[in-house]
Amino acid sequence: MKRISILGSTGSIGTQTLDVIAMHPDAFEVEGLAAGSNTALLLEQIQRFKPRRVSVSSKELAEEIRTSLPEGVELFSGNEGLVEIAAGGDADTLVTAVMGSVGLQSTLAAIDAGRHIGLANKETLVTAGHLVTERAVRKGVQVLPVDSEHSAIFQCLNGENREDIANITLTASGGSFRDYSRDQLKEVTVEDALRHPNWSMGSKITIDSATMVNKGLEVIEAHWLFGLPYEQIQVILHPESIIHSYVEFRDSSIIAQLGNPDMRVPIQYALTYPDRWASPAKRLSLSQVGQLTFREMDYVRFPALKLAIECGKAGGTNTTAFNAANEIAVARFLRHEIPFLRIEEIIEEVLQHHVTVAFPDLEQIEYCDYTTRELASKL
Amino acid sequence: MKRISILGSTGSIGTQTLDVIAMHPDAFEVEGLAAGSNTALLLEQIQRFKPRRVSVSSKELAEEIRTSLPEGVELFSGNEGLVEIAAGGDADTLVTAVMGSVGLQSTLAAIDAGRHIGLANKETLVTAGHLVTERAVRKGVQVLPVDSEHSAIFQCLNGENREDIANITLTASGGSFRDYSRDQLKEVTVEDALRHPNWSMGSKITIDSATMVNKGLEVIEAHWLFGLPYEQIQVILHPESIIHSYVEFRDSSIIAQLGNPDMRVPIQYALTYPDRWASPAKRLSLSQVGQLTFREMDYVRFPALKLAIECGKAGGTNTTAFNAANEIAVARFLRHEIPFLRIEEIIEEVLQHHVTVAFPDLEQIEYCDYTTRELASKL
Repeated sequence: MKRISILGSTGSIGTQTLDVIAMHPDAFEVEGLAAGSNTALLLEQIQRFKPRRVSVSSKELAEEIRTSLPEGVELFSGNEGLVEIAAGGDADTLVTAVMGSVGLQSTLAAIDAGRHIGLANKETLVTAGHLVTERAVRKGVQVLPVDSEHSAIFQCLNGENREDIANITLTASGGSFRDYSRDQLKEVTVEDALRHPNWSMGSKITIDSATMVNKGLEVIEAHWLFGLPYEQIQVILHPESIIHSYVEFRDSSIIAQLGNPDMRVPIQYALTYPDRWASPAKRLSLSQVGQLTFREMDYVRFPALKLAIECGKAGGTNTTAFNAANEIAVARFLRHEIPFLRIEEIIEEVLQHHVTVAFPDLEQIEYCDYTTRELASKL
Repeated sequence: MKRISILGSTGSIGTQTLDVIAMHPDAFEVEGLAAGSNTALLLEQIQRFKPRRVSVSSKELAEEIRTSLPEGVELFSGNEGLVEIAAGGDADTLVTAVMGSVGLQSTLAAIDAGRHIGLANKETLVTAGHLVTERAVRKGVQVLPVDSEHSAIFQCLNGENREDIANITLTASGGSFRDYSRDQLKEVTVEDALRHPNWSMGSKITIDSATMVNKGLEVIEAHWLFGLPYEQIQVILHPESIIHSYVEFRDSSIIAQLGNPDMRVPIQYALTYPDRWASPAKRLSLSQVGQLTFREMDYVRFPALKLAIECGKAGGTNTTAFNAANEIAVARFLRHEIPFLRIEEIIEEVLQHHVTVAFPDLEQIEYCDYTTRELASKL
């Protein structure tokens, strides 16, 4: 029996993680659940999965649900609550499915407590890849990707020598505005942006797909997850999102992972690795799909991707600033405060002001995150 | 230093194996070379690769080249010569690249002598899969595929549990007459057939691609190589031959191996496994390729594939009879004695007469092979 805790249990990845757990009731137990403010769904999850520890985003929400909890369930709240769910109790694996930079402190705490990590929180590696990977190695903790692209790369590396890798390629669907020119992008609305062709996702990540910021964050993540220099990480446009990513080895062989878009597959693999268990995910029939298409990535059309890779190469706090500026800009776009193309401009302007700290500690990362958000809110 | 012997050194796979060896002169040494009748090329190979043992197809040819050999080279001939190269000397790995059923006896001898096998001779597993796999296990010998499809499957299984396989799929280009109807096939000539769109191969295998017999033999090989029932082996039409084959696991993940068509890649992998070494093979750019297409296999259009799988399922000497009938029929087509569609008919008629031996020994296989050839020559 594997004991799982989840940060962000009521979000898209969190609920799908619970779907996977529900499919294998003899194999998994839920130790802890941390949610934001969706207490109705959290209470349902508590009834069904019987966690021993739960947390919500604020003290007020905690008081609201306290009397509805089954006896014996420990209740926490706020950032301390996240850390309690991440590092307290006796989970084997923590799935970090909270959005944004709040996931970092709790993920580090979980690693220090010896939990294996199913990593769905991009910001953890983007803002603190050097701290996370160093601690995970020291603690002998596995950091397993939950993202479909990184899970694909991870699967393609099974049984292979790392020194045989020539390069890895992340596939990108191109997002909601794949076929729009820069000119057409000037007028797009929030509602246009939220129609993603392949994946059903939260609104923040859907916007990040349209700006290609999401792929930029994935490139930075891949750099840390697989210990590869940016020169060995490529991105290709693949509108069908069927090949989830691939690895080229030095003998010219390419190993690719394919499937229908279904996040339950990479989530489950992170929980069952190195084994594979049965899944109800719809089988991929390539003859039904008929064709797969590929186009070179256009870094002029998608400048935010180029910017993300430059930040990755520059290192230090640059990636934190990139991520924080983007989070604020996307939130402002979703509130209809700024037009779509202003997202990229805000990131770029923030980075022009940014003074890099080369090897930041947690405090410096948090300070950079805070000050960047302040700045990005005003631009 | 790995010592390699090659059966069929002057053929397509043989010369490409020597190309691979020439790329890594500090890692490989040639122990023995067996050729057919192309003594001019064999003598060149002897000068360049300095094998200790060589063989040609007949005593007469041996006498022709005897005086041209460097001092100390041992010379053999005929079927005994093949066995001498396969099992004598001190090679680590034998690459069996002879065409047809002559490869069987020598491959078995090599396994008995503890040589690892780089298997490019299809007929070995098609006619005697039960004998070969049983002996290889008993001797602790690796039988590594050299065929691009089987090498692809083998690579996709790296680091995976065999019990997690849902099924494997071999890709088929469709051969020279992919887009011809059955009616159009009536009139095709030898010259039409020898124009294969993707791979540069010998004439026998090019015809086998056009009839889809080649894919049938590959399915039977895959059954033995990977220990999978025929129900778990599928075939898909993939005209571009870029995805060389793929594995679906029970979690719905598909792992595929891709590359430009270049036999040096699977040959090298069989020699360097589990490592991958640098290769001058042209890198695959999916954005340059642009699109990959797939179609369901049409077993009515390609009845020989259906027949091959039925023979595989029926087991025993059926696959030997299938293979022998095909060899004779293809030879007759190449001599312009019969029309293209008569190849399938001859195989079918032979199988109608065939009396199955369920668990044949080597002698019974050879007897079946001989009598089937006799019959197929007269039909």
